[in-house]
Amino acid sequence: MNAENDTADIELDIDGAAEYLNLPSSKLKGLLDRRIISPNWGGIDNEYRRLFRFDKSVSNIEQGSVLYKKDRSFKLIRGFPKIQRAMLLGPALKNHFSDINTVAVEEKMNGYNVRVTDIGGNIVAFTRGGLVCPYSTERARYLLDRDFFKDYPDLVLCGEMAGPDNPYVPKDVYGIDSLDFFVFDIRDNGHGMPYMLHERRKLAQEYGFSQVKFFGEFSLSDAADEITKIVRELGKVQHEGVVIKDPKMIISPIKYTCSQSNCADLRHALKFYNDIGRDYLFSRVVREGFQSVEWNESEAELQKRCLQLGESILRPMTESIKQVRDGTRIADNVQIRVKDPNTIYLYKEYLKRLGVDAVFGEPEPIGNEYLVKIKKQNQSTNDKTESMCKGELW
Amino acid sequence: MNAENDTADIELDIDGAAEYLNLPSSKLKGLLDRRIISPNWGGIDNEYRRLFRFDKSVSNIEQGSVLYKKDRSFKLIRGFPKIQRAMLLGPALKNHFSDINTVAVEEKMNGYNVRVTDIGGNIVAFTRGGLVCPYSTERARYLLDRDFFKDYPDLVLCGEMAGPDNPYVPKDVYGIDSLDFFVFDIRDNGHGMPYMLHERRKLAQEYGFSQVKFFGEFSLSDAADEITKIVRELGKVQHEGVVIKDPKMIISPIKYTCSQSNCADLRHALKFYNDIGRDYLFSRVVREGFQSVEWNESEAELQKRCLQLGESILRPMTESIKQVRDGTRIADNVQIRVKDPNTIYLYKEYLKRLGVDAVFGEPEPIGNEYLVKIKKQNQSTNDKTESMCKGELW
Repeated sequence: MNAENDTADIELDIDGAAEYLNLPSSKLKGLLDRRIISPNWGGIDNEYRRLFRFDKSVSNIEQGSVLYKKDRSFKLIRGFPKIQRAMLLGPALKNHFSDINTVAVEEKMNGYNVRVTDIGGNIVAFTRGGLVCPYSTERARYLLDRDFFKDYPDLVLCGEMAGPDNPYVPKDVYGIDSLDFFVFDIRDNGHGMPYMLHERRKLAQEYGFSQVKFFGEFSLSDAADEITKIVRELGKVQHEGVVIKDPKMIISPIKYTCSQSNCADLRHALKFYNDIGRDYLFSRVVREGFQSVEWNESEAELQKRCLQLGESILRPMTESIKQVRDGTRIADNVQIRVKDPNTIYLYKEYLKRLGVDAVFGEPEPIGNEYLVKIKKQNQSTNDKTESMCKGELW
Repeated sequence: MNAENDTADIELDIDGAAEYLNLPSSKLKGLLDRRIISPNWGGIDNEYRRLFRFDKSVSNIEQGSVLYKKDRSFKLIRGFPKIQRAMLLGPALKNHFSDINTVAVEEKMNGYNVRVTDIGGNIVAFTRGGLVCPYSTERARYLLDRDFFKDYPDLVLCGEMAGPDNPYVPKDVYGIDSLDFFVFDIRDNGHGMPYMLHERRKLAQEYGFSQVKFFGEFSLSDAADEITKIVRELGKVQHEGVVIKDPKMIISPIKYTCSQSNCADLRHALKFYNDIGRDYLFSRVVREGFQSVEWNESEAELQKRCLQLGESILRPMTESIKQVRDGTRIADNVQIRVKDPNTIYLYKEYLKRLGVDAVFGEPEPIGNEYLVKIKKQNQSTNDKTESMCKGELW
């Protein structure tokens, strides 16, 4: 990401903020100097520059948290906590939820995590990293009932932006026409405490919000079997998996995902083999190993899983190599759909600042909206493949 | 590796060494202080402490180089240079060897790289990192004709230690009973210049050394096809691949390997999935992609390769997970065969200093030698798998 070289002129009451965050002023100043805490950009009259985001975790404040001042008092939108993963579902459920009797299961959708809240009378959407995303902000303003934020100015709606018009993880599997926001958490702006599951679902329903699917509550003794059934069914329709929660939201939730989604991730990622992190491949491979053991697979089932894994890795890579060899650069083709043409401009600027090399197509009118195709260039994979085709060495 | 806390008492003529290496004395002193250059250990009366190894590349001096003084003058055993890899054989040959007409092809064996030279009248064997390996040193003394080192005290024999009694990469595929040393390079101790290929083979033959297999010289226009044939045949017998060389050894060599060896590497590594580097998996996966494209594989061939890759990754991992779940810790079972029981003790100490957690079995007499089975513990994989089985989260 491009560094902003203009922090200096942002007014942040350092002593006040330090007191609110319970940090020494000197430490806060150091974090600002090292840009571990830095202002957002954009908004009318650069208003988002008042929103300071945490690029890393600091003391007990999560990465992606956003600090700002509202009516003379500070506010902190907590970064969305990382949800830990069960590798062996049965043992993980028994161990993690040993203090409660029943767990609730909701769908983990495959989109991108967004937190939405009211800032000075306007809805603003933050990415996981605490950046104001202009596209998500426009979509949130259009999708979400303003009244909620008037009635609950201190709440943060956490949800998944999912659907085909998703510029990060486009998915057709949810039967969504464009993009929708699915609430999975409502948290307090400040201490960050989540609503209890059923209260949250009730509140979201009152305001007509879309929500992630609720599969039910299960006794701890039945949960592993029930969730395995759910996950097998979700896999068949290429959905991602589930999040298993304490209905009271006191114990932290855990996630568990389908092999099919895992392999779909790999298929997408390996197209751009040299752009993905090495960990991306490794972590997904390991999940397959544990699931196969827990599911006590037969020789035939294991063989099928091996073939699926191998194909998810090799086929997209060979396709990309062939394509580049034959003269066509590869790109990740995504799209956005907006109401206001200005959002296209803002989103373009946003990706540019993030260092994403993207080519925007001409806006195509669809009803009262505009569809814009975006080609995200995967420079590293293109360059590496081209150089191998020219006979350079690895 | 354990740091030695006793560099201070080693006498190194810093000014003299700096002049020899063409480095400022202050820089050399800094490298010693930061232990980028540090003494070896062991030998009679700790004599190996006079052998200073380079833990990283410094200016033009390769990682793994060893500096020492002989008869008042300094000597430098150059680190063995990294051989770059062809991903697409045809383009790589044309590009890399464009200045010459023919290339020579030798086998790349799957063992470990050792440099052997005379130090003060004794044969000493260094690992790639420049450590004196007591096992390799004993084996080299037993396997190699002393006369060579008397006749050529300033030459370094570079070769592959391969066979079943190899404590790093045991291989049965070479038809070797225990362990042998296969010469693939002879270099000058000092400037590091290699012998020309045929001179080197002749010299090695004169002294009765084992050598890596020579497949022939090929014109640059035929080389890709010929080498592809060789690699396909080597793959069938689970050999590793080839190194392609300028017969005059002016242009640097390049390597190219078989898919079968690649998959065998993965099968071994994924047993210890949490101990291997993430890059290990990634790099091998990418090689499969490029080879499949260059070999213009049919749908059936690609599918076979996908299955082979998936199986090489998943099967060993699931076996390890099951084994740990059922209560048996996993280990890498290797063995050494020695003449002198003291070598067992020295090698044990050596592994300990390297931080390798190894359990040595009782020496079993075989003829006039001793076979010692060694269980190398893969702590990280054992611990991670156990914790997952207890229901901890990833």
